[in-house]
Amino acid sequence: MIVILKPEATEAQTDVLRKEITREGVIVQEIRGDGTRMFGLAGNTSGILAESVLRHTFVERVVKVSEPYKLAGRRFHPADTVVELPSGHKIGGGELAVIAGPCSVESEEQILSIARDVKLAGANFLRGGAFKPRSSPYAFQGLGLDGLNLLKIAREKTGLPVVTEIMSQEYCDVFARDVDIIQIGARNMQNFPLLREVGGLGKPVLLKRGASCTIDEMLQAADYVLGRGKNSVILCERGIRTFETATRNTLDLSAVPVLKKRSHLPVVVDPSHGTGHWDLVWPMAMAAVAAGADGLMIEVHDRPEQALCDGQQSITPLLFDRMMQKIKTIHDVMREDGERYGRKRTTDDAA
Amino acid sequence: MIVILKPEATEAQTDVLRKEITREGVIVQEIRGDGTRMFGLAGNTSGILAESVLRHTFVERVVKVSEPYKLAGRRFHPADTVVELPSGHKIGGGELAVIAGPCSVESEEQILSIARDVKLAGANFLRGGAFKPRSSPYAFQGLGLDGLNLLKIAREKTGLPVVTEIMSQEYCDVFARDVDIIQIGARNMQNFPLLREVGGLGKPVLLKRGASCTIDEMLQAADYVLGRGKNSVILCERGIRTFETATRNTLDLSAVPVLKKRSHLPVVVDPSHGTGHWDLVWPMAMAAVAAGADGLMIEVHDRPEQALCDGQQSITPLLFDRMMQKIKTIHDVMREDGERYGRKRTTDDAA
Amino acid sequence: MIVILKPEATEAQTDVLRKEITREGVIVQEIRGDGTRMFGLAGNTSGILAESVLRHTFVERVVKVSEPYKLAGRRFHPADTVVELPSGHKIGGGELAVIAGPCSVESEEQILSIARDVKLAGANFLRGGAFKPRSSPYAFQGLGLDGLNLLKIAREKTGLPVVTEIMSQEYCDVFARDVDIIQIGARNMQNFPLLREVGGLGKPVLLKRGASCTIDEMLQAADYVLGRGKNSVILCERGIRTFETATRNTLDLSAVPVLKKRSHLPVVVDPSHGTGHWDLVWPMAMAAVAAGADGLMIEVHDRPEQALCDGQQSITPLLFDRMMQKIKTIHDVMREDGERYGRKRTTDDAA
Amino acid sequence: MIVILKPEATEAQTDVLRKEITREGVIVQEIRGDGTRMFGLAGNTSGILAESVLRHTFVERVVKVSEPYKLAGRRFHPADTVVELPSGHKIGGGELAVIAGPCSVESEEQILSIARDVKLAGANFLRGGAFKPRSSPYAFQGLGLDGLNLLKIAREKTGLPVVTEIMSQEYCDVFARDVDIIQIGARNMQNFPLLREVGGLGKPVLLKRGASCTIDEMLQAADYVLGRGKNSVILCERGIRTFETATRNTLDLSAVPVLKKRSHLPVVVDPSHGTGHWDLVWPMAMAAVAAGADGLMIEVHDRPEQALCDGQQSITPLLFDRMMQKIKTIHDVMREDGERYGRKRTTDDAA
Repeated sequence: MIVILKPEATEAQTDVLRKEITREGVIVQEIRGDGTRMFGLAGNTSGILAESVLRHTFVERVVKVSEPYKLAGRRFHPADTVVELPSGHKIGGGELAVIAGPCSVESEEQILSIARDVKLAGANFLRGGAFKPRSSPYAFQGLGLDGLNLLKIAREKTGLPVVTEIMSQEYCDVFARDVDIIQIGARNMQNFPLLREVGGLGKPVLLKRGASCTIDEMLQAADYVLGRGKNSVILCERGIRTFETATRNTLDLSAVPVLKKRSHLPVVVDPSHGTGHWDLVWPMAMAAVAAGADGLMIEVHDRPEQALCDGQQSITPLLFDRMMQKIKTIHDVMREDGERYGRKRTTDDAA
Repeated sequence: MIVILKPEATEAQTDVLRKEITREGVIVQEIRGDGTRMFGLAGNTSGILAESVLRHTFVERVVKVSEPYKLAGRRFHPADTVVELPSGHKIGGGELAVIAGPCSVESEEQILSIARDVKLAGANFLRGGAFKPRSSPYAFQGLGLDGLNLLKIAREKTGLPVVTEIMSQEYCDVFARDVDIIQIGARNMQNFPLLREVGGLGKPVLLKRGASCTIDEMLQAADYVLGRGKNSVILCERGIRTFETATRNTLDLSAVPVLKKRSHLPVVVDPSHGTGHWDLVWPMAMAAVAAGADGLMIEVHDRPEQALCDGQQSITPLLFDRMMQKIKTIHDVMREDGERYGRKRTTDDAA
Repeated sequence: MIVILKPEATEAQTDVLRKEITREGVIVQEIRGDGTRMFGLAGNTSGILAESVLRHTFVERVVKVSEPYKLAGRRFHPADTVVELPSGHKIGGGELAVIAGPCSVESEEQILSIARDVKLAGANFLRGGAFKPRSSPYAFQGLGLDGLNLLKIAREKTGLPVVTEIMSQEYCDVFARDVDIIQIGARNMQNFPLLREVGGLGKPVLLKRGASCTIDEMLQAADYVLGRGKNSVILCERGIRTFETATRNTLDLSAVPVLKKRSHLPVVVDPSHGTGHWDLVWPMAMAAVAAGADGLMIEVHDRPEQALCDGQQSITPLLFDRMMQKIKTIHDVMREDGERYGRKRTTDDAA
Repeated sequence: MIVILKPEATEAQTDVLRKEITREGVIVQEIRGDGTRMFGLAGNTSGILAESVLRHTFVERVVKVSEPYKLAGRRFHPADTVVELPSGHKIGGGELAVIAGPCSVESEEQILSIARDVKLAGANFLRGGAFKPRSSPYAFQGLGLDGLNLLKIAREKTGLPVVTEIMSQEYCDVFARDVDIIQIGARNMQNFPLLREVGGLGKPVLLKRGASCTIDEMLQAADYVLGRGKNSVILCERGIRTFETATRNTLDLSAVPVLKKRSHLPVVVDPSHGTGHWDLVWPMAMAAVAAGADGLMIEVHDRPEQALCDGQQSITPLLFDRMMQKIKTIHDVMREDGERYGRKRTTDDAA
C-alpha cells in the first residue's frame, strides 16, 4: 500500500498516521522530495484498510499494491483449480465444459427434448432457468420449484448435471439438495448475504460477472463464496454494460486471459447473454474458446420463436450441433497451447 | 409497439405473426414500401411481449412505444406523490427532505451525537447503516441488529424518522417493525425477490439507482415494489458507473428532471456516494436542489477520519450546518419555480 | 512515481531499472517486505515516462503520483485565471459568463434576431456554428465562411463577442482574425495538431470535453494549447458517453468542482449538448451554476422546430429570458459562497 | 422512420407535420388508438432528417428504421469488398491480412530489423507510426516525415506495403505518394475534414473505431471517406472505453460479426491497443480470428523494454513468430466455415 500525502500535511498529522499504520509485520517507509510525500508500506498490510487511511483529510490518495482478493487469487494458490462433481464431470483442467439448454424450463417435454439434443451434440452440462430475474415485473418469472423438478427429471434421463440460478436465500436447502452447480446471476453478483449463504452449501457455484462489475470485484465476490471453506467457484464472463447498443451487452473476452492470470478458478463464457443475438453466438463461442476459456454456457431452444424467454438469443439444437463440431476443432488447437499464460516475452525467454 | 420486419420476410411468415399479435383492443397496421416493412400496433399492447415477437427470425427489431413501467409512471398517475409518515414527516410536495447521518452506525454515542447535530442543522430524517454491503468480505460489515436498535434509540431521543438499508429478506419483519423508511441499496435495485417482499411490508421504500441501471429500469424496479399495493417509493439518484475515475461514481443529475417528467414519485439525491469525496458533497448537494430534487441524502460523521466506513465522503456536522443554510436559500429560489416541468417552449406557450 | 515490481524480479533486473531511473534531482527508494517490492520516486520525475518503465517485463505496475498536466494545473498557478477579451468581456473571476445563440448560423436575419434577444436577456457572448461536425455526411454541415461573416455582422450590431468552433487547421488565419473565442469541439479535444495550431493564434480557446475523455485528459489537452504560450483556455463540460439513453450524453456536473480544484482555468457548462433535450436545459443550467460553474453555453433558437441543427435541444428566446432571471438569483446566492473550494472539513477548520 | 407523437398533439399540429414529411416516394401512414399516436413512414425517407422532425415539441420520439449509413452498408452492396493494392496484396476475401510492426518508427535499423522479422513470421503488411497522437504533450510525438522515409526504405527492402497513421490534412500529399494504406486513428474517427480529405487521395484507408463510438457511427465515418468515390475502407476494431481498468480498452470482439453483417468492408482487429498488455495480445489475436476477422494489426518490437512508445503492449519477433503458427491453424479452421454469416437458425434452414 502506498499513501500519498498532500503537500500541506504537517509533521504532527503525518506522525498520527504513521502510528496508526505501524504494526508488527508492516514496514513503513517515508519518501519525500520536491513537493512529493508518501508512505510506502510493505509486509502484511491486510489489516490496514485504504478507507481508514483516506479518512485523513491530509491524505491525497491511497494506492493498493496487493490484490483486494485472497482465496480466489493465484498468489497463494498457483495451481489451476479443477471443479469436479461427484458424478465425475469436470470444469477446468483441459477439457471443455459445455453447459447448454434453454433460458427457462417451460415443460417436461421441452426440457427433455432439448437436454437430449444438446447431450447428443456434445454438451456435458444442462442449463435451464427455474427462477428468472426479469427487469419487468410483467414478464414471465419462471416455473420456480416446478422448474427445478423438471430439471431433476432431465438429469435422471440424460445423466447431465444441472446448472441453474438461485435468486433468494429462502431456496438454499432445495438447491443444495437438487442442483449440481448453483448459479449466481449477474444481478446478484454483489448480493453478499446470498453469496455467503450459497458459499456454505457445499456445492460448486457458477458466479456470473455483474454487468458493471470490474474483474477485481468479481474476484472479491468469489472470496465471499470461498470464505465459507466448502465450495469451489466457476467464474463466468457474460458481458458488461457499455454505450454500444448493437449488442445486449459488450462481451469482454479479454476478461478470460486476465482472470486466468489473476485467479486459479476455471472461467467459462456465456455468449448468449453476452451478445443477445443468436447469430452472434457462434462466432463469439469460437472466440471464447480461442481466448482460452475453460467452457461455454449456451442457450439452446428447439423452437426459439416460441420460447418464453430470450428466444432471440437462443440457437436451435441443429445449429448447436454444427457449432460444437467447429468448437472441438478450435479447442484441440488451443489445447496444444497449454503453457500459454505466463509465457515470456523477451528474446531469450521465448526461445 | 412497432415491429420492423426483415425485407426477406415471406407473406406466410408475416401472416403467422399478424395472427399472434392481433387481439381485442389492439390495432395492427402494416406499413410497407421500398424495402421497408413494419407492423404498427396501437391500443392495449400490454399483453404482447417484445421478446415473444423477436423470437421470429424474420423480425428485424421491435420498438416499444409505451413505457415499460406502469405504476411508477406519470401517465396514469399525473399528480405528484407525497410520501407521508405517520409522524407527519413528508418527502415530496414542496418541502425539502434532508436525510443525514453516518454511513454506518458505530456506537450509541456516535449515532446520538450525529443525530442531534444534523437535526439542529435542519435535517428531518436520520440515515445510518446497520447492514452494510461491502465489495470486500474483509471490510466492516455493519453492526446488524444491534445497529437497528441504536437507530431506534436515536429516533426516540431526536424524533427523527430512520432510513436504513435492508440487504436480505430474512430481516423483513424487523425492518417493518423498527424502520420508518426502508432503503434498497444500489446493488440490490434488481434483487427482485427482495423488492417484492419489501413491497409487502407497508412501509415507504427508498430505492437507490443501480450503478449500471437505466432510468427506465429503475422505474421498472419501482413497479416491483409498488405492485404489492401497500407501499410508496422514493427514488434516489446516487451516481452511475462510467469510465471517469476522478469520482467514485458519476452523479447523473439530469436523472432528476427526467425522473420527475416520467414519474410521479419523489426524487432524492445522494451526493456522498455519487461523488465519493467530502469536498464534492457541498457543490453537488447545491446542484441537486437546483436541478429540482425533492430531497438529499448526506453522509455526516463527527470524526470522519475515524469512521468505520466511507469516511472520505463524509462531512462534519459543522460543515453540514453551513451547507444547510445555503441549501435552504437555493431551495427557496427553486420553490418559486413550481410549475417548471412541462413548461412550454414555443413563443406563444412561454408568454 | 511508484514502480511496483513483480515478486520474481531478479536483482540484476532491478539494478538495470534503478540505474535508468536514477538521475539528478530524483530520489529513488526501495521498499520491500513479504513479497512486495517497489521503488518510490520523489523529486523532479518529469523526465521519467511511465511507459519507459512499464516496458520492463518484471515491472507489475507504475503509479503516477504527480499530475500528468502542468500548465493547466493549480500547483504552479494557484490563482484563478480570468480570461479577458480586448473588449473587456470576462470569463472567470466571479461574473457569470453566458454564451448563447443558435446551434448553427442559418441566415443574417436568424443570427441577428437571436443575438439581440439573448443580449436583452442577459447573455454576454454569442455562440453560433459556422462549421458543424456531424456524425452523418448527409446532414447539414454549416454555412462555413459565410457563417463566420454573419457572426461578424451580429457582433457589430450587438457588441457581443463571438464564440464559434474551428474544425480544421486550414481556417486558423480566418479564425484568428474574425473570432473572439475559438471553440475546440468535443470530437476534436484530442486532435493534437489542431490544438497546437490554435494554441499559437493568440486568442482564448474554449475547450470542450471529449465524450469519452477523463478530466485529466482534458487538462492534458489544455496543456497542448497552453504550451504555445500565447493563449488562455476556458474548459467546457458538455456530457460524457454512458450507457444511459434517456439523455444524449450524461452531463457530469461533478466535473465542475473537480476541475476547479485541479485547475486554475475557468469552467463553463453546456447543458444543451449535455442533455440533448430542451426541457432539461433549464434545470441543468441552474444546477451547473449551483455547482460553481463560471459560465454557461446555451443553444437558443427563435424557431427551434425549424432549426437546421439540434432544434430538439434549443430553447426559445422567451424561455431563455425567464431562465436567465432565475439563474442570476442562483448565481447571487453562490457568489456569497466565494471561498468554497479547499474548504476544510474538520471541526476546527470549519469553525 | 417512425414518428411517435405526444398524446396531447392537436390535429392542427400533426397536419403541419404530415405536410412536411409527405413527398414523392414516401408513404405516410397514421396509427392511433388508446393514447398512442404515430406516423409510420416507408419508401425513400432519406431526405427526412430525424432532427427536423424532433424539432416539433409535440413529437415524442423518432425511430429510424433504415440504417444511417449507405456506402458502407451491405444493403446496396451485398458482396464482400476485397481491398487490393497495386502490389497485389489483399485485405478481405479469405486470406488473413497480418499488419505488424513497431508502435513508432525509431531508426532505420529498428524498422528494418523488425520488418524483416515480421515478414519472415508471415506478416504481409508493415505498420509503424511516424506521427503519433499522444495524450500528453510531453511524450514522444514520432519522427514525422523522417519516419515516413524510413518506412519507405523498409518497404523497398522487404516488399511489405506500409500502413501508417495520418493526423493532419497538411500531410495528405505526402501520404498519398508514400503510404500504401492510410490509417485514421481512433481519436480522429470523427475528424470529418480529415476523413473527407483522405477520402479523395485514391488510397485505401484503415479506419480505427473511436474509443467511444458506436458501430453505426463507425460506418457513418466510413461513408465520409467512401463519399469521395475513389477509396476503399478497412474497418479496425481496437477497443472501446468502459469502466474496466484491467485493460487499456475493452476489445469489443462482437463488433467483428456485427460489422460483417452490416457492412461489406473487411474488418481487422488490433489486440495491442485493444488490451494494452503484451501478454493479452496472443489470446485476443486468436480470439479475433476465431470471431471471423479478416486480419490483425499487431505491435511488434525487438526490444519492447526500450521502445519509445507502447512497449508494454508490444510482443517480440520470436513470440510473434510462434503466435503466427497458431493463428494460421485457427484461420484454416475458420476458413472452412465460409458461409457463416446469415446462417439460418430454424430447424429446416440449418439442415
